[in-house]
Amino acid sequence: SFVGKIVEDPVSHLLIPVGEILLIIVLTMIVLRLIDRIIDKVFTLSRMESKKAQTLRKLIKSISHYVIYFISVLTILINMGFNPMPVLAGAGILGLAIGFGAQNLVRDIITGFFLIFEGQLEVGDIVQINGQINGTVEEVGLRVTKIREFNQRLHYLANGNITQVTNYNREKMRAIVAVTVPYESDLDVVSKALDEVCESIGKKYAPYLVEKPEVMGVTNIDQTGVQFTITALSEPDEYWSLEREMRKEAVLTLHRRGIEIAYPRSVVYHSEQIRALQSKETVSQ
Amino acid sequence: SFVGKIVEDPVSHLLIPVGEILLIIVLTMIVLRLIDRIIDKVFTLSRMESKKAQTLRKLIKSISHYVIYFISVLTILINMGFNPMPVLAGAGILGLAIGFGAQNLVRDIITGFFLIFEGQLEVGDIVQINGQINGTVEEVGLRVTKIREFNQRLHYLANGNITQVTNYNREKMRAIVAVTVPYESDLDVVSKALDEVCESIGKKYAPYLVEKPEVMGVTNIDQTGVQFTITALSEPDEYWSLEREMRKEAVLTLHRRGIEIAYPRSVVYHSEQIRALQSKETVSQ
Amino acid sequence: SFVGKIVEDPVSHLLIPVGEILLIIVLTMIVLRLIDRIIDKVFTLSRMESKKAQTLRKLIKSISHYVIYFISVLTILINMGFNPMPVLAGAGILGLAIGFGAQNLVRDIITGFFLIFEGQLEVGDIVQINGQINGTVEEVGLRVTKIREFNQRLHYLANGNITQVTNYNREKMRAIVAVTVPYESDLDVVSKALDEVCESIGKKYAPYLVEKPEVMGVTNIDQTGVQFTITALSEPDEYWSLEREMRKEAVLTLHRRGIEIAYPRSVVYHSEQIRALQSKETVSQ
Amino acid sequence: SFVGKIVEDPVSHLLIPVGEILLIIVLTMIVLRLIDRIIDKVFTLSRMESKKAQTLRKLIKSISHYVIYFISVLTILINMGFNPMPVLAGAGILGLAIGFGAQNLVRDIITGFFLIFEGQLEVGDIVQINGQINGTVEEVGLRVTKIREFNQRLHYLANGNITQVTNYNREKMRAIVAVTVPYESDLDVVSKALDEVCESIGKKYAPYLVEKPEVMGVTNIDQTGVQFTITALSEPDEYWSLEREMRKEAVLTLHRRGIEIAYPRSVVYHSEQIRALQSKETVSQ
Amino acid sequence: SFVGKIVEDPVSHLLIPVGEILLIIVLTMIVLRLIDRIIDKVFTLSRMESKKAQTLRKLIKSISHYVIYFISVLTILINMGFNPMPVLAGAGILGLAIGFGAQNLVRDIITGFFLIFEGQLEVGDIVQINGQINGTVEEVGLRVTKIREFNQRLHYLANGNITQVTNYNREKMRAIVAVTVPYESDLDVVSKALDEVCESIGKKYAPYLVEKPEVMGVTNIDQTGVQFTITALSEPDEYWSLEREMRKEAVLTLHRRGIEIAYPRSVVYHSEQIRALQSKETVSQ
Amino acid sequence: SFVGKIVEDPVSHLLIPVGEILLIIVLTMIVLRLIDRIIDKVFTLSRMESKKAQTLRKLIKSISHYVIYFISVLTILINMGFNPMPVLAGAGILGLAIGFGAQNLVRDIITGFFLIFEGQLEVGDIVQINGQINGTVEEVGLRVTKIREFNQRLHYLANGNITQVTNYNREKMRAIVAVTVPYESDLDVVSKALDEVCESIGKKYAPYLVEKPEVMGVTNIDQTGVQFTITALSEPDEYWSLEREMRKEAVLTLHRRGIEIAYPRSVVYHSEQIRALQSKETVSQ
Amino acid sequence: SFVGKIVEDPVSHLLIPVGEILLIIVLTMIVLRLIDRIIDKVFTLSRMESKKAQTLRKLIKSISHYVIYFISVLTILINMGFNPMPVLAGAGILGLAIGFGAQNLVRDIITGFFLIFEGQLEVGDIVQINGQINGTVEEVGLRVTKIREFNQRLHYLANGNITQVTNYNREKMRAIVAVTVPYESDLDVVSKALDEVCESIGKKYAPYLVEKPEVMGVTNIDQTGVQFTITALSEPDEYWSLEREMRKEAVLTLHRRGIEIAYPRSVVYHSEQIRALQSKETVSQ
Repeated sequence: SFVGKIVEDPVSHLLIPVGEILLIIVLTMIVLRLIDRIIDKVFTLSRMESKKAQTLRKLIKSISHYVIYFISVLTILINMGFNPMPVLAGAGILGLAIGFGAQNLVRDIITGFFLIFEGQLEVGDIVQINGQINGTVEEVGLRVTKIREFNQRLHYLANGNITQVTNYNREKMRAIVAVTVPYESDLDVVSKALDEVCESIGKKYAPYLVEKPEVMGVTNIDQTGVQFTITALSEPDEYWSLEREMRKEAVLTLHRRGIEIAYPRSVVYHSEQIRALQSKETVSQ
Repeated sequence: SFVGKIVEDPVSHLLIPVGEILLIIVLTMIVLRLIDRIIDKVFTLSRMESKKAQTLRKLIKSISHYVIYFISVLTILINMGFNPMPVLAGAGILGLAIGFGAQNLVRDIITGFFLIFEGQLEVGDIVQINGQINGTVEEVGLRVTKIREFNQRLHYLANGNITQVTNYNREKMRAIVAVTVPYESDLDVVSKALDEVCESIGKKYAPYLVEKPEVMGVTNIDQTGVQFTITALSEPDEYWSLEREMRKEAVLTLHRRGIEIAYPRSVVYHSEQIRALQSKETVSQ
Repeated sequence: SFVGKIVEDPVSHLLIPVGEILLIIVLTMIVLRLIDRIIDKVFTLSRMESKKAQTLRKLIKSISHYVIYFISVLTILINMGFNPMPVLAGAGILGLAIGFGAQNLVRDIITGFFLIFEGQLEVGDIVQINGQINGTVEEVGLRVTKIREFNQRLHYLANGNITQVTNYNREKMRAIVAVTVPYESDLDVVSKALDEVCESIGKKYAPYLVEKPEVMGVTNIDQTGVQFTITALSEPDEYWSLEREMRKEAVLTLHRRGIEIAYPRSVVYHSEQIRALQSKETVSQ
Repeated sequence: SFVGKIVEDPVSHLLIPVGEILLIIVLTMIVLRLIDRIIDKVFTLSRMESKKAQTLRKLIKSISHYVIYFISVLTILINMGFNPMPVLAGAGILGLAIGFGAQNLVRDIITGFFLIFEGQLEVGDIVQINGQINGTVEEVGLRVTKIREFNQRLHYLANGNITQVTNYNREKMRAIVAVTVPYESDLDVVSKALDEVCESIGKKYAPYLVEKPEVMGVTNIDQTGVQFTITALSEPDEYWSLEREMRKEAVLTLHRRGIEIAYPRSVVYHSEQIRALQSKETVSQ
Repeated sequence: SFVGKIVEDPVSHLLIPVGEILLIIVLTMIVLRLIDRIIDKVFTLSRMESKKAQTLRKLIKSISHYVIYFISVLTILINMGFNPMPVLAGAGILGLAIGFGAQNLVRDIITGFFLIFEGQLEVGDIVQINGQINGTVEEVGLRVTKIREFNQRLHYLANGNITQVTNYNREKMRAIVAVTVPYESDLDVVSKALDEVCESIGKKYAPYLVEKPEVMGVTNIDQTGVQFTITALSEPDEYWSLEREMRKEAVLTLHRRGIEIAYPRSVVYHSEQIRALQSKETVSQ
Repeated sequence: SFVGKIVEDPVSHLLIPVGEILLIIVLTMIVLRLIDRIIDKVFTLSRMESKKAQTLRKLIKSISHYVIYFISVLTILINMGFNPMPVLAGAGILGLAIGFGAQNLVRDIITGFFLIFEGQLEVGDIVQINGQINGTVEEVGLRVTKIREFNQRLHYLANGNITQVTNYNREKMRAIVAVTVPYESDLDVVSKALDEVCESIGKKYAPYLVEKPEVMGVTNIDQTGVQFTITALSEPDEYWSLEREMRKEAVLTLHRRGIEIAYPRSVVYHSEQIRALQSKETVSQ
Repeated sequence: SFVGKIVEDPVSHLLIPVGEILLIIVLTMIVLRLIDRIIDKVFTLSRMESKKAQTLRKLIKSISHYVIYFISVLTILINMGFNPMPVLAGAGILGLAIGFGAQNLVRDIITGFFLIFEGQLEVGDIVQINGQINGTVEEVGLRVTKIREFNQRLHYLANGNITQVTNYNREKMRAIVAVTVPYESDLDVVSKALDEVCESIGKKYAPYLVEKPEVMGVTNIDQTGVQFTITALSEPDEYWSLEREMRKEAVLTLHRRGIEIAYPRSVVYHSEQIRALQSKETVSQ
């Protein structure tokens, strides 16, 4: 009989089970404290606004506690001889559903960690995100990054959606100005005019330049004309004003030199002309 | 024999099994109450219209109760010696199918929680969602967000589909007006005219301005001409009217100063002209 | 021996097993009835045409019954001492495959429930779905929604594919008419003409207007000219005719006032002209 | 010893095991027949060409039989005391791989069932699929739908890829003809001319019209001119010829009335003109 | 003791275990042969080039054999009392990884089976795949389909990527030729000219025509003019030359009749003209 | 007692366990050798550069060995009476995570195998990948394929991303040259001129031609004019130069014959003209 | 009794359990060291900046240690007779959720390994990533690659998102310059002029050229004219300046030879002309 067994071997049938249950309770309390400390540590790293962090930290702790209580109670029951398969199965399916739904959240946090850790984005950097959103970084959080566009709209981006970061504040920037002149222009005169522009800019921006401005030659031929490009390598902070100044200087210098800038050109025929032209040519052939 | 066993050890064979079953029933009742309280709490946070919330809350409670009853009955059966593997497997597959299908629902709610918690969207804010939908936030719910466009169409968006929030109501906005003048214009005269615009706007909007309006220099060179830009940093609420006023002022001032605004330009040749031109140039070379 | 055991302890070896089997049969019958009632209830809510609903309901019931019979038989066998692992594994894989394939169906139904519950779409509303399909809602079902376009084509959309609902029938609509005039126009005269339009429309549509029509100032500057916008806030039903009337009135009033509407403009040069122009300017500089 | 056990309790050690095996064989045969009948029934519903259906039915039956034999043999072995875990695991992984790959097949069939059941597509309907493929429905099968384009190409579409069905044969269709006239036109004269068109069409098509044709007013203002629209609601079958007739009538009537239809217009300046114009205006201001 | 047990009951402890192992070996050999025969059968159906098929068949057989040996050895070990959980778990994860990666392969084969079975593609058919690739079918295999474009490039497409098949060789094709004439044209004269085209083509292609050519009326109104369409229903093989002939005939007949074909038209104003025009009209109003 | 048991039945309690452990060790060594040989064989087939292959082979072997050691140790422990569930669960989750991440790698290798096996790509072939990347195949590996563009940039493509292979080196290629002439051209003269081109090309390229060049008739009518096409079927290697020659010949012959090639045409009206035109026509009607 | 058992057989009930626990502790320590060494080795290979690597290495080690401690404790408990199913299930779901979320991380690292191993990207190479981002490789890490654009913006790309690498630094590059001349040009004169360009460039760049420059004939015919192409094969480092020089030389040479470069051409009719033209032609027919 039950009582008989206990009397016969009190260690196996009373002491050990009760000891097991006590051990589970002790372990539960240890785990609760550990979880609390881990959550606190993560929040310290998460760069979140202190008031909101407080609210969220409480919420997460309270959910974690409930989950751990639930697991503890189940473990005690199972060690008392219950078979809680259906409860486990039910909780497991619920857990999976939530796990699937929270997949993005986990990805946001992992990506956010690396964004911060690798220094891809730092507050104040001018960046482009995914080749689409341009602006200044206002905050990099574990889950969400805030970018302020030049017109001051504030973008909120979940970190998991940030697949490509382009940073304008890494050591240096190159100002690039392309100018197109008509085919009929004298290319040497154009070259000389642009050399002048480079020299003048080189003097004005000397303290900020990493490399002297230079003319890159004929960088394209298209339907409107021949394209020349001038470039200059400067410190990132002066890049924007430098490029504006180079544009202005180029326009002014070409004017001064009487070099026409290429407007779209087209040749217009009237049917008689085109026929005449073709005949002539085929004759001359 | 069965009866013999019970007589022999009534604690093990009668009392404990019956006690287990009673314990399961008690735990079931505790869980039911807990679930009800959690559901109530979530609904209090969910910002839903009270009448609809009432209906939905009842529905969710009733489904939860059925699921818990089902798990309880199964647990009792299993502890009475049944092997309900097939039932469990069947319910498990059904549960997974529903879980997969409900994945989006879970994601909507998690995203919705963070939208509200992080204050990305607040009722009355002017926002852009996913770079496509512009309008005023009318309601941010746990599952769905309502945006009213300027023409007053009402957009319903599941929160899980909101991947990028752009907010126009965060501290300040910058009005930006770009003006393109032909290459032949006198760039200094244009600069002065735009300075005038800035000064005039600076006076008119003084109380709302965060930073004074300024001319940004040559911001682009393209086929139509040379682009200048003027900007002003104001409070978000005045942004829209400020930008309209800046546009009007710019057009009027440039007119007054006799500066032509750049219409698309093109150069038209007739075949004789172009030939003559080329010959001349190649001769002069 | 087997017979011996039964004789020795008929309760354990005969009564209980037989009782268990009977219990399974009873539970099976209860579950069958429950399932039938749930299916009936869902169909009552599903807004489906009664004849089709009848057919589908029968089909679903009959499939559910077969599945439950199958699970019952398996449970009885397992409790008689069989080990049906392979059968379970086979059925499980089949179930998963069907579950994966039916994922969309579940999603359609969940989304459909919320579309109806949240009142995103109501029969008769004019809506836009996913920013692409425009029309009047003809039916919102649990699985499928029917939209009738203006040209009366009927769109069938699975609810799970509806990610963005834009509703034109929520309280009010704003008619917006943009008019572009050339840069050379006298902006004050244009403003006054548009004020007249607003006044006239304000009188005509007085009973339907939520807010008086107003001119919004210079809303854009582009290559064709300067854009003005007039708007009026009305009841949703009058929105369409109001906007048509505003367009007509605007065209008539601008004609009457002799204000030219902006056709695309372009400036045409001949090579001599452009050269002359540039020389002159560079000289005058 | 083994023989001893059998002799001692022949029911438990010989009769019951042999009985179990026989029972499994009997159940296998029942399941085989059931599967055959289900396959037959599904094929009767599947609207497939009879000869192909025959081939496919045989193939599916033969595969099902092999699978069931395999499961039966395994169940017998397991009940004879074998542990076939590795076999089960191997078959399970294979089954899952096939299940994943067949996911689309299951989705096609489920979608196909609803396409047929809900009457979204009926043979002979003119439809648009996914907003891209236009044509007449030639066959709706369980897995694949055939659409014949107007130029008679035949499209085969797996049902699972059909996400949006647009049907031109549901009760009625509205013919819509838009006509754009230049800004300078006399809008009232245009209105009257289009009224004439409506009246004339109304008479010609009277028996097929659901609603009389009507002029909708100014439906758009763009760079080419002012757009008017006329519409008429007819039976679906007459829709195509009605719209063609309305177009023809509109062109003829506007010609007759001497109303110009809007070709793209543009205003061309020469640099002197534009300057003069601006000066004048700024003077007159 | 071990030896004692065997001596005591040689059937249970020696004969049965040895028998089980022998049975597993026998079953393994049966399964190997079955697998070989199934692989042979699938290859017979797979329409693959015989030499390559030989190589691939050998490879697949050898892999299958290794997998079956592995499962057999594991089963024997397990029935000798080993617990091979870790081995199973390891093999299971590897199997799943391969299963996931091979998902596409399975999908290709299932789709390929249906492409062949339903006759969507037959060697020699002219088809369009996914609305992008046009050409003649050169081979339809179980995994890959080869399409030869008109310029004779050979496309290899995995069957699983074929989501939409458009077939030009199913019973008939309709040649469609659209002609646009200016608004000012006399529509009746155009109609008559096109009737002539139809008659002439109807005679020339009589033996190949399924339906006589016909004029479809005004099929569109756009900025360039009024569009008429003529169509003819022919056998698929003559479709291409028929359409070319119809185009040629249409151009020739319209020339002969002196009907102008619509080049893009535009109306050019000079600022004085447009003003004058508007004044006049507003006066005449 | 433990010692007692061993003394009593040394076979069961000492010999067999020790034997089992030895057997596991022996099997482990067999598996290690097998794995090494399989890896060696796969590398022999993988067409990889010998030095890199050496490095990678070593790495893979060493990882495989560690995994097998781990499984062996676990199996020994389990057979000594340990319960290593948590270790297995931990390793299983890690294995799954890696398996998911390596999914693409498996797919690359499977696709790579078929690319090589089916001869879709051979070194030296000119191909187009996914309709985007054009170039010469430089290497086809198991994981990665290298394509060298005409401008000699080298593309590295993971095989799993190659969904569509278009091969220019399969038996023959067809050169296609389309020429557009104005509507007013004499179509018969054009036809004859193009026949001449065909004849001339037919002679020049005779040894490389599979089929003689031919004129295909009117292949399109669009806004610029009437399009004729000439084609020729040649060996793949001569395709590129043949097409260039055909283009040159066509331009020269049409010049010689005085046939104008179609430049974009447009008809320009002035408002008076268009009015006059319309009146005249409506009068003449 | 418990004590009795231990006294009776101290080896089985005391020594072995305690030994097992000690063994687990020893194995745990071995595993911890192994993990530390593996992490160290991976970091040595990972090419990460030393300071950051230090931080990350510590973090990963500490997480790994916690996980291993957790597994060890659980294994000890289980071997002491606990049933920790619920704990395992809980940890398993958490592990899966993290595993899913970390999927991308694993993929990044695997891809990164192959990028480095196969030498697709080397520091200093000029590359194009995914056909979009152009620049110089600044760093290739295990998780992230840094590309510096020509304008010096720095791109951070997760390796898993790099699906296509195009490398400009593999042996050689081909400069390609296309020039379009009008149809009326004398094609032989153009050919000769371009031959001159090739010869001149061939001399200037002799030391860097892999193959001599050559003219490729008529590479295209389009609406603007006839396109010729010249190419030259050089060392990768000279590619950029070579192409610029070829462009300049081509423009200069064609000027010198008096060959017009093709501006967009169009033929303008007035309605009378076009009519006259057509009549004439139809007459002459």
